[in-house]
Amino acid sequence: MTKRRVIKFGGTSVADFTKLRNIADYLKNRTEKDEQLVVVVSAMGKTTDELLKNVQLLTASPNEQDLALLLTTGEQQTISYLSIILKELNVPTQAMTGFQAGIRTKGHHLKSKILNIDEQKFEKAFETCDVVVVAGFQGMNELGEITTLGRGGSDTTAVAIASALNVSCEIYTDVAGVYGTDPRLYPAKRLDYVSYEEMMEMSALGAGVLETRSVEIAKNYNIPIYLGQTLSDEKGTWIMAQEEILEKKAVTGVALDKDMDYVTVSYPMNDAALLKKLFEMLEQEEVNIDMISQIVNMDGLQISFTMKDTDASQINKIFTVLNEEYPSMNFNIQENYVKVSVIGSGMRDMSGVASKVFMTLLNNNIPFYQVTTSEISISYVVDQKNGTQAVEKLCSVFEL
Amino acid sequence: MTKRRVIKFGGTSVADFTKLRNIADYLKNRTEKDEQLVVVVSAMGKTTDELLKNVQLLTASPNEQDLALLLTTGEQQTISYLSIILKELNVPTQAMTGFQAGIRTKGHHLKSKILNIDEQKFEKAFETCDVVVVAGFQGMNELGEITTLGRGGSDTTAVAIASALNVSCEIYTDVAGVYGTDPRLYPAKRLDYVSYEEMMEMSALGAGVLETRSVEIAKNYNIPIYLGQTLSDEKGTWIMAQEEILEKKAVTGVALDKDMDYVTVSYPMNDAALLKKLFEMLEQEEVNIDMISQIVNMDGLQISFTMKDTDASQINKIFTVLNEEYPSMNFNIQENYVKVSVIGSGMRDMSGVASKVFMTLLNNNIPFYQVTTSEISISYVVDQKNGTQAVEKLCSVFEL
Repeated sequence: MTKRRVIKFGGTSVADFTKLRNIADYLKNRTEKDEQLVVVVSAMGKTTDELLKNVQLLTASPNEQDLALLLTTGEQQTISYLSIILKELNVPTQAMTGFQAGIRTKGHHLKSKILNIDEQKFEKAFETCDVVVVAGFQGMNELGEITTLGRGGSDTTAVAIASALNVSCEIYTDVAGVYGTDPRLYPAKRLDYVSYEEMMEMSALGAGVLETRSVEIAKNYNIPIYLGQTLSDEKGTWIMAQEEILEKKAVTGVALDKDMDYVTVSYPMNDAALLKKLFEMLEQEEVNIDMISQIVNMDGLQISFTMKDTDASQINKIFTVLNEEYPSMNFNIQENYVKVSVIGSGMRDMSGVASKVFMTLLNNNIPFYQVTTSEISISYVVDQKNGTQAVEKLCSVFEL
Repeated sequence: MTKRRVIKFGGTSVADFTKLRNIADYLKNRTEKDEQLVVVVSAMGKTTDELLKNVQLLTASPNEQDLALLLTTGEQQTISYLSIILKELNVPTQAMTGFQAGIRTKGHHLKSKILNIDEQKFEKAFETCDVVVVAGFQGMNELGEITTLGRGGSDTTAVAIASALNVSCEIYTDVAGVYGTDPRLYPAKRLDYVSYEEMMEMSALGAGVLETRSVEIAKNYNIPIYLGQTLSDEKGTWIMAQEEILEKKAVTGVALDKDMDYVTVSYPMNDAALLKKLFEMLEQEEVNIDMISQIVNMDGLQISFTMKDTDASQINKIFTVLNEEYPSMNFNIQENYVKVSVIGSGMRDMSGVASKVFMTLLNNNIPFYQVTTSEISISYVVDQKNGTQAVEKLCSVFEL
């Protein structure tokens, strides 16, 4: 029986014609094993950067709709070239831009979300073709305008098509799969399996191999994703539902989120209006905060949170405004913190992870300041200078 | 009242960002005079050549559908850049690819013809915009596949849109309008007016400034075309219906079609089967012949025609095959001829043009071998070495 798969190749995998030819040979080989393939490709190598560089010659703030129209030519060129090569190899192929593949989007032109995909376009193509080559990263909105999908967009295209067709999705990059932590921090092993939830926590906590959005779509449609190295025999990582992973581990990853600021606000009264104003302004200035803790006692109100230090100028602006209205408010921004997170779906069922992390930090004299837990992760704020050591010790303790 | 116009700029007019900026300034200026403009642009400078060069690295015979998909990215980039610049100048603008402009095509992917244009797309765009920038040379067929229009395609796009909107069309190139003959042959004057029929004859006879197809569309919809020099104050040429041209001239142009072969076939009997076979084979081998003359008398059959010498190998092949079946057939291919044509709608009403041409050639000792006439032209086959002199003398006689 014919098997269908969605396969995605990233920008460096399609950097030049030699690589495109190698990918075409590989695809021909797979069609000969009776597979029908949707192949999602990005723009070749530095094409997108070059188009952006051209635009910078014209203006610092290009219209987003026009920019989307321009950038999508990059992937359109890749699908044309790959389709030409595949047909030269006698592989029945059809090339499709995002809108030709029926990818409908909504939202900002450069950060659109996929609304739906017309799977009939693929059914029809597979009547005569073995390979459908689709331009990643792009679609069309309800006004008939061409849009792009924003960060990690080609991954989202691939996973969304796989979801529409209800088949699994293979994503090939330079790296063979998902590691227990950033390989530059600790020589962790590659994971054979990781659950959707774990992968999403890892992405959100700064260990992103795949954008959270693509994993979310795969989770919603229960589509397994295989992350592997382009044209390599090395084994990669399957991202799938936790209940389908047989060999469960308590901890699958340790993530390090660098360059955090630790902010403390105190006020002699428990004033709800102040808090409301503070959070309104944080939202307005688009400052992302996390790890919030609050103490209310006889001394008044004290609230602490962490945030990326890239938002430092916004937070200073906010406090300057607030101080005019609340002169007795004190605030304190401490720099040079990092967040170390231990992630694992197994935490739900297996006890002792939290205490093991706690003991590891204590035994290695690594002080921590704030702790938060989610269902499948525990995060600690520690001094920046201790970040790498904390990752090493935790990876070692959890045998990653 | 707001005036609408379609304006087309050719490849060299949009060769770089400086030229694009100048065009944008010019368009802004025109919108400030209360004009609404459709602007049709080609790919920038050498873009199309570069894409074709890339494809040659992949294969000598690329799939035509994929090639059309690839080439159309060139114009898509131009419209994006031009729209970005116009918006930067605060000109309300919308960029449209061929299919977004509702340009439906039929036929071969690389030589498609425009089937129809959805003028509602333009009506809608003009509700909010002063300029609609359209990618020339492209459209979409009934299968939703992206196509290109073949030779002179962007001119056709512009004229077809002007016809759909029932407004006049301005086409800007490096040359300021239409001249009585090729300026490299004789310093003829620029024509202020030329009729559709004259322009078509000139194109067909090798003096092509505009592809015959675009002129044909303009004629069918009675759309005046202005041919001028990009961003120049120099006066150009209006192409319009003969009856609207007030100052009629007997002769508007002299065209020189170079590198003709003169072919004579003779056979001792009047054999219809031989002729049928000959014309079938000419069609099969795509040899374009013209100026056919035939003599049937007691000596049998003699037929002569002219053709471009680029078809010489095909004609030799044809005669080799025919000679096997008809060994007593004689044929003769004479090289080094040219065709000199005198064109003018005024010939219909004014007598004496034919005799004036005849006398000019005779007085200058220029022998001629074949003569044909159409309603608005007379063509003579002369020796190649006399071609330029014939053009000079005829231009001078008819005061071009």
